[in-house]
Amino acid sequence: MEFGVHSEVGTLRKVMVARPSLAHERLTPRNCHELLFDDVLWVEQARRDHAEFVSQMRQRGVEVFDIQDLLAEALDKTDDARPFLLDRLVTANLCGPGLAAYMRPWLDDLDGKTLARQLLGGIIIDDLPDEDMRRMAQITMAHTDFIIPAVPNAQFQRDPSCWIYNGVTVNPMFWPARQPETLFQRTVYKFHPMFRDADFKIWWGDSDENFQSASVEGGDVMPIGNATVFIGMGERTTRQAVTQLAQALFNQGAVERVVACVMPKSRAAMHLDTVFSCLDRDKVTAFMEVASEIRCFSGRPDGKGGNAITEEKGSIFDVYSEVMGVEDLKIIATGGNEFQAEREQWDDGNNVVALSPGVVVGYSRNTFTNRKLREAGVEVVEINGQELGRGRGGGHCMTCPLLRDPV
Amino acid sequence: MEFGVHSEVGTLRKVMVARPSLAHERLTPRNCHELLFDDVLWVEQARRDHAEFVSQMRQRGVEVFDIQDLLAEALDKTDDARPFLLDRLVTANLCGPGLAAYMRPWLDDLDGKTLARQLLGGIIIDDLPDEDMRRMAQITMAHTDFIIPAVPNAQFQRDPSCWIYNGVTVNPMFWPARQPETLFQRTVYKFHPMFRDADFKIWWGDSDENFQSASVEGGDVMPIGNATVFIGMGERTTRQAVTQLAQALFNQGAVERVVACVMPKSRAAMHLDTVFSCLDRDKVTAFMEVASEIRCFSGRPDGKGGNAITEEKGSIFDVYSEVMGVEDLKIIATGGNEFQAEREQWDDGNNVVALSPGVVVGYSRNTFTNRKLREAGVEVVEINGQELGRGRGGGHCMTCPLLRDPV
Amino acid sequence: MEFGVHSEVGTLRKVMVARPSLAHERLTPRNCHELLFDDVLWVEQARRDHAEFVSQMRQRGVEVFDIQDLLAEALDKTDDARPFLLDRLVTANLCGPGLAAYMRPWLDDLDGKTLARQLLGGIIIDDLPDEDMRRMAQITMAHTDFIIPAVPNAQFQRDPSCWIYNGVTVNPMFWPARQPETLFQRTVYKFHPMFRDADFKIWWGDSDENFQSASVEGGDVMPIGNATVFIGMGERTTRQAVTQLAQALFNQGAVERVVACVMPKSRAAMHLDTVFSCLDRDKVTAFMEVASEIRCFSGRPDGKGGNAITEEKGSIFDVYSEVMGVEDLKIIATGGNEFQAEREQWDDGNNVVALSPGVVVGYSRNTFTNRKLREAGVEVVEINGQELGRGRGGGHCMTCPLLRDPV
Amino acid sequence: MEFGVHSEVGTLRKVMVARPSLAHERLTPRNCHELLFDDVLWVEQARRDHAEFVSQMRQRGVEVFDIQDLLAEALDKTDDARPFLLDRLVTANLCGPGLAAYMRPWLDDLDGKTLARQLLGGIIIDDLPDEDMRRMAQITMAHTDFIIPAVPNAQFQRDPSCWIYNGVTVNPMFWPARQPETLFQRTVYKFHPMFRDADFKIWWGDSDENFQSASVEGGDVMPIGNATVFIGMGERTTRQAVTQLAQALFNQGAVERVVACVMPKSRAAMHLDTVFSCLDRDKVTAFMEVASEIRCFSGRPDGKGGNAITEEKGSIFDVYSEVMGVEDLKIIATGGNEFQAEREQWDDGNNVVALSPGVVVGYSRNTFTNRKLREAGVEVVEINGQELGRGRGGGHCMTCPLLRDPV
Repeated sequence: MEFGVHSEVGTLRKVMVARPSLAHERLTPRNCHELLFDDVLWVEQARRDHAEFVSQMRQRGVEVFDIQDLLAEALDKTDDARPFLLDRLVTANLCGPGLAAYMRPWLDDLDGKTLARQLLGGIIIDDLPDEDMRRMAQITMAHTDFIIPAVPNAQFQRDPSCWIYNGVTVNPMFWPARQPETLFQRTVYKFHPMFRDADFKIWWGDSDENFQSASVEGGDVMPIGNATVFIGMGERTTRQAVTQLAQALFNQGAVERVVACVMPKSRAAMHLDTVFSCLDRDKVTAFMEVASEIRCFSGRPDGKGGNAITEEKGSIFDVYSEVMGVEDLKIIATGGNEFQAEREQWDDGNNVVALSPGVVVGYSRNTFTNRKLREAGVEVVEINGQELGRGRGGGHCMTCPLLRDPV
Repeated sequence: MEFGVHSEVGTLRKVMVARPSLAHERLTPRNCHELLFDDVLWVEQARRDHAEFVSQMRQRGVEVFDIQDLLAEALDKTDDARPFLLDRLVTANLCGPGLAAYMRPWLDDLDGKTLARQLLGGIIIDDLPDEDMRRMAQITMAHTDFIIPAVPNAQFQRDPSCWIYNGVTVNPMFWPARQPETLFQRTVYKFHPMFRDADFKIWWGDSDENFQSASVEGGDVMPIGNATVFIGMGERTTRQAVTQLAQALFNQGAVERVVACVMPKSRAAMHLDTVFSCLDRDKVTAFMEVASEIRCFSGRPDGKGGNAITEEKGSIFDVYSEVMGVEDLKIIATGGNEFQAEREQWDDGNNVVALSPGVVVGYSRNTFTNRKLREAGVEVVEINGQELGRGRGGGHCMTCPLLRDPV
Repeated sequence: MEFGVHSEVGTLRKVMVARPSLAHERLTPRNCHELLFDDVLWVEQARRDHAEFVSQMRQRGVEVFDIQDLLAEALDKTDDARPFLLDRLVTANLCGPGLAAYMRPWLDDLDGKTLARQLLGGIIIDDLPDEDMRRMAQITMAHTDFIIPAVPNAQFQRDPSCWIYNGVTVNPMFWPARQPETLFQRTVYKFHPMFRDADFKIWWGDSDENFQSASVEGGDVMPIGNATVFIGMGERTTRQAVTQLAQALFNQGAVERVVACVMPKSRAAMHLDTVFSCLDRDKVTAFMEVASEIRCFSGRPDGKGGNAITEEKGSIFDVYSEVMGVEDLKIIATGGNEFQAEREQWDDGNNVVALSPGVVVGYSRNTFTNRKLREAGVEVVEINGQELGRGRGGGHCMTCPLLRDPV
Repeated sequence: MEFGVHSEVGTLRKVMVARPSLAHERLTPRNCHELLFDDVLWVEQARRDHAEFVSQMRQRGVEVFDIQDLLAEALDKTDDARPFLLDRLVTANLCGPGLAAYMRPWLDDLDGKTLARQLLGGIIIDDLPDEDMRRMAQITMAHTDFIIPAVPNAQFQRDPSCWIYNGVTVNPMFWPARQPETLFQRTVYKFHPMFRDADFKIWWGDSDENFQSASVEGGDVMPIGNATVFIGMGERTTRQAVTQLAQALFNQGAVERVVACVMPKSRAAMHLDTVFSCLDRDKVTAFMEVASEIRCFSGRPDGKGGNAITEEKGSIFDVYSEVMGVEDLKIIATGGNEFQAEREQWDDGNNVVALSPGVVVGYSRNTFTNRKLREAGVEVVEINGQELGRGRGGGHCMTCPLLRDPV
């Protein structure tokens, strides 16, 4: 078994995703903002659309894994995955000591598939198997309240970890509501048989410490090639984390250069991959209004365990071209007039994922952008984003590449 | 030509709608909240879905008119529609005196179709035909700023006016951003040849006064039958307006009873028709969490030009049954478990429009509710609400019945 | 009787203010934001502080009038003030037809003093003199709900009107909640014996039309001298109004030049006078972070009833100097380090009112700014702003100069 | 040296407070919400008012300590306080690895007084002693940005810990922004000579774990007497923490009964002590609108290391009376009419601290409530809350009793 991501656009061979889960069935207009979703979605349709997404990738030879299945298998096939996970999730601090003690034996007994479904979908009082316990819990909570919250954002497998060449980081995420997602991926990477015996490193993040202001989300991280990684720095991925991560990567010889891409504060720029993604060795797509204001700083090992930092004069496009040795980079901006471009950026027009150089998956709704990509010689595999996109993420956000060729 | 709405569920014969327009193409994540939309939508798909909606109604014998076409015809076919409309919209107060004076001759010269499209879609600086003028306007505005704002909510033709038996009210709407919609309908009702010569009354609202705290929106108004009208009272339809409207209706002999349905404050209950709509003479659908808390007050003429008000002891369902003479009212609650019911209410599961007794149009996404409706013997004509519903409104919100039989 | 304001810093002879009223006693943490106040205030102390403010002005020879007294007198001493006011405030649209009809005879009978107090303080259900009526009104309202809302912002008499040389504008204000303030001042200017027989003009705004997007607030308007008026253009004072106002002023020969001062969007810059005010002929105080980004446009009569507009190359300080013929303008920036300056701007450090050239009233809490003003030779009369300033306004905001000398 | 708090109203002998600090000088309208303050305050005046507060307590024999002084002494007089504190605050996760490494030697060298001032006031880039470092840090930050944020809420010493009879809890607080306050108190309790050798226990919380959803704030905790503690449960003090805390107290024999007081969700009820506080053995003050909706649950040791929970039938007043053996409890509600009561609750009218039975300190602005307290025989020592109260807290919030007699 081999894992490693050596570029943003080389042939994708293995990828991890998360189909819409019980979590999405439990999103409501009342709880969705707390669960970090803009809106509820039509889960049946979203499942059909996600299945089509997976099918399109498989048709092109990509091996696709679903985190819910991997988690179930890890829980079933190993003895240590379950205690690792439940010790960290079913705690006095998260559930209260009484409920934690009560729920643990029940959860210890569930089969892996049921448990994985329940952990993604959250545990509400009505899920408890015991009438007395449900009555007790309702003293201070409503019967549909979450004891362990649902994690609908797991749909965006890009974020909780990121593969950088021969290893992976498991990410302390910005919002506490998303931190269980990292725990699920850590469990899989550490215990699932497929990974347990594989040859890769966890570069950073495999710790139970409180990372506080140091947060990283994978949508900001792009191992573009040539031993270089781009890291968007903004609301979600902080200075405190980027500097730590760079040191860890340098110290383990993972990369030679980290390019911090400082993003302007803007609602449109949650992650770097919402305004910039790679299509081919010499083609990228970008939402220019934001991407043109990104400032780049290159960090390289200073030989003393720290980072030597240089401000780049050029734009993110200049730095990309330089790193990749591209003379004539084609930048395909979001399509349409100003209104349309702003709309299509919002609908993930620039958040495409490459299956191989020049072949990307994008949402069909972004008709203006997709047309421009095609005119530039890019093959766009279209999937329906009417429901999948409501959580604000496209093909890039929904995929965690596990094995990708260099370009 | 005949107009009049004599029930909520009698056979629908004529209806007015608004297909997605230029306004929707100009919605962006930045401006959508100001324009009172929750999200942007995929306009091409929304148009296809709306066309299907219209087609379904036509197949069942309903004559369907689009406000944009009616407005265009009114502007083209009469001399007085245009000054009536432009005198009220292209003013110093709304556009500034310089821009108003500059734009008026241009707008006076546009053909009706172009003008109607532009008035619905808003006028931005880039639309101005003259380079100098555009330059001037950009001193204090951006080139995509609206001089006359777009009115995407026109999609919900239910609200700007409401037919109550043999006449109609033209409604002072809650948000200033929606007031042009009323002006468009007033223009059509007063000048379009189809209405100009028809025999109906404008009961109330046909005035240029500043209605201030007195606002009514049609989604709150239901002429259920038996000379009675239900009026939801809440955020959008205020006490100040309901009492005026009741007096106007009584004084003109339009109805004998007005039932004010006071809604609890809740995000879910924007209009009465978002939590309650009629399916058949003896069947209604409701979101019980909200609908069960509605308190009803009946107003009847006091013989002195005022209203005699009685508090109803029973629920809105009891009052409905009493008015309609129904012994065994079937209430079909929003479908699914608590999560699903809350989601489907949000997605307009209770906001269906009847084409004839027991035949309604609803969004296909509301699978749990639609199943329950069918099990109760209601025929549900399904249309796709993935895009149309993003502005938060279903079949009931999107239709302004012009002619409907009693039941 | 003479009225007219011929400068920002010439000797102040007559001024109108509003002491804290019943409105302030009715501010609560729950209603204050709706009533446009940031916080509640300690009314007793605010009254003491306001009395001190008035006393300080009187000691320096200024004749001080309180709008509440003027309104009471206008209501008592003339027959036409009361119907003018009540016809516009006690209406079906604002109060509902039933309550309006019920309340009118009661309000017609109140003495002027009681009525003025009640109109400023708002009318709640508990205020109604009749038990039956109170019971009726409580069907849909709570017993402390406002039928006519309180107007605590009347404390800031600067805004509802502004004297510009020999006349005054009565201003359509941005928030509907403040529009009664303009009505009170209109009533006084039109009917109070002191004004009724005086020789001045109402330049603009004396109309019951719905001004819609055309709003002006006096805190943005400064008749600095030399037939020139500065008008801040931003959230509260709009392009639609400034252009109308300029035309009205030019057409009546009121001024020769209007300088539109376009403010950057910023929470700190509600009105021009929150970031810029005049101290002496050759001294101004400003919050530089905002004031340095103001762009100026001069309008002059174009001879055809319109405005000829020129963009100014220089800053607002350059334009001020040019208009006033000042060679060496002293700009006293908000005091202290960056934190302190931002705090003191917020606490109205730059919102001082001149009593005569070089003598201004400011809040004592702005110690850093006041020290700088004194070092620059300005006499600062200090008043306590701990309570008065909670509504976000200082000496400039709280005063409506009625008679001020040229400088 | 003796510490311990045996009641809410017994004679207060030792107390810890925090005078307004550098943190308050750095509050601005822009950063105050992030730093959890509603508004900026006039620091000089706040300092005078706080000094008066301290003086009033000293005049009545209370020994008053200031956390800033205690922290400075702990840092200066012991070797281990500084590494304990800085190891937890100057970390890669909070400051970034580069800045943490750079700042540590500088902070290691500062004298205790300077360091304590700086830790309360936060460290901004301009504070850094080295020009190169400042330049480096400004790559991604502004020169007044906080590297270590200010903690103005330290003013409210009630919250970070709470003494419960013979010991104290150090509290995991709800907002990360307040967590340094707990660290400061932990440092003092563990290392300051006065506490290090004293005989008391830290019941709970003395750990570096990530408490996640388990948060407690002292304003919710009241050791009323008779081996019973009241704990308000709401936004800030969670079920997850209350159950842990109860177990810890029972297991160490600290109390025999924990009364969880479940508060309704309401902006007015941040902590229990904002709506309920004790005046004397048989007198309490309360904001009835909220306090009357509190539901009480008594927890007692179940003999198996867990809690036996009983729902109380009566109100919080009934439970208080029962615990204290009071036959005729006098409840003094917030004063004035409904508007005034709501205002005075907001201004901490019910948030008084007892110096001895029947003697309390309250803000002078709450004239209606204070009058009622006096009429009920309570002595009210008045201090000025015009500035101190802007952070939303009164005498109870501002004090951490260290030694108080039983009653």
